[in-house]
Amino acid sequence: MIGRLNHVGVATPSIEASVALYRDMLGATKIGTPFDMPAQGVRVCFVDLPNSQIELIEPLGDASPIHGFLAKNPKGGQHHVCFEVEEILAARDELRAKGATILGTGEPRIGAHGTPILFIHPKDMGGVLIELMESPKGEGH
Amino acid sequence: MIGRLNHVGVATPSIEASVALYRDMLGATKIGTPFDMPAQGVRVCFVDLPNSQIELIEPLGDASPIHGFLAKNPKGGQHHVCFEVEEILAARDELRAKGATILGTGEPRIGAHGTPILFIHPKDMGGVLIELMESPKGEGH
Repeated sequence: MIGRLNHVGVATPSIEASVALYRDMLGATKIGTPFDMPAQGVRVCFVDLPNSQIELIEPLGDASPIHGFLAKNPKGGQHHVCFEVEEILAARDELRAKGATILGTGEPRIGAHGTPILFIHPKDMGGVLIELMESPKGEGH
Repeated sequence: MIGRLNHVGVATPSIEASVALYRDMLGATKIGTPFDMPAQGVRVCFVDLPNSQIELIEPLGDASPIHGFLAKNPKGGQHHVCFEVEEILAARDELRAKGATILGTGEPRIGAHGTPILFIHPKDMGGVLIELMESPKGEGH
């Protein structure tokens, strides 16, 4: 089922500070422009690596799901891992049939890459919050 | 400086249970054979994805550095992110000059892929424990 490791989601209290860290300290050269995703309560920015990405995630708004994570991890930290799947609904149904817990309503939302996404509860995933993202089609991925 | 995202390190109380999770629940098809790294106090197993890897890490021995992580995260969870660099000593010296804290003596050890590795303290890395690994040479990476 799972394909490419699309990105690692890294929560941060400040995308600006994290961009400076990845650019100036770690020497990343391809860093996108931050953008808001109000429906998900986050502001995000992608750091492109040759084979994958780091998704920097900052809380957006008082109801952001990232506030709780940052309360426990004030400096930020690894928040989730995103794997690509070919068909999000088929993946969801197969995982549910095997006993996994899909977060929220279970209806996919459109993620930062413009394709449908879902999250799987970490309790059944070895403590790892897993995002599944339908692979972008026709982009050479 | 940083190149490929070589792997995401995932700590687990049981590699056997995590292998079953990635194989049977998530449908990963290329999973290596677990092996011990006594000098580092860990037993590891790599799950191969098309573009990167998940490194499952289980404590090995009473002094394993993974015990503390599992005490805080009994189900396991994301432990570190590993980026490849061309030259580990040049990367170390540049990071130190910029104020990063290299863990341990600062002398690279040989990692699970047979090349030198170092870890950077998460306090300066946005709460993320970062492993740097010298890129394997001559293997088409």
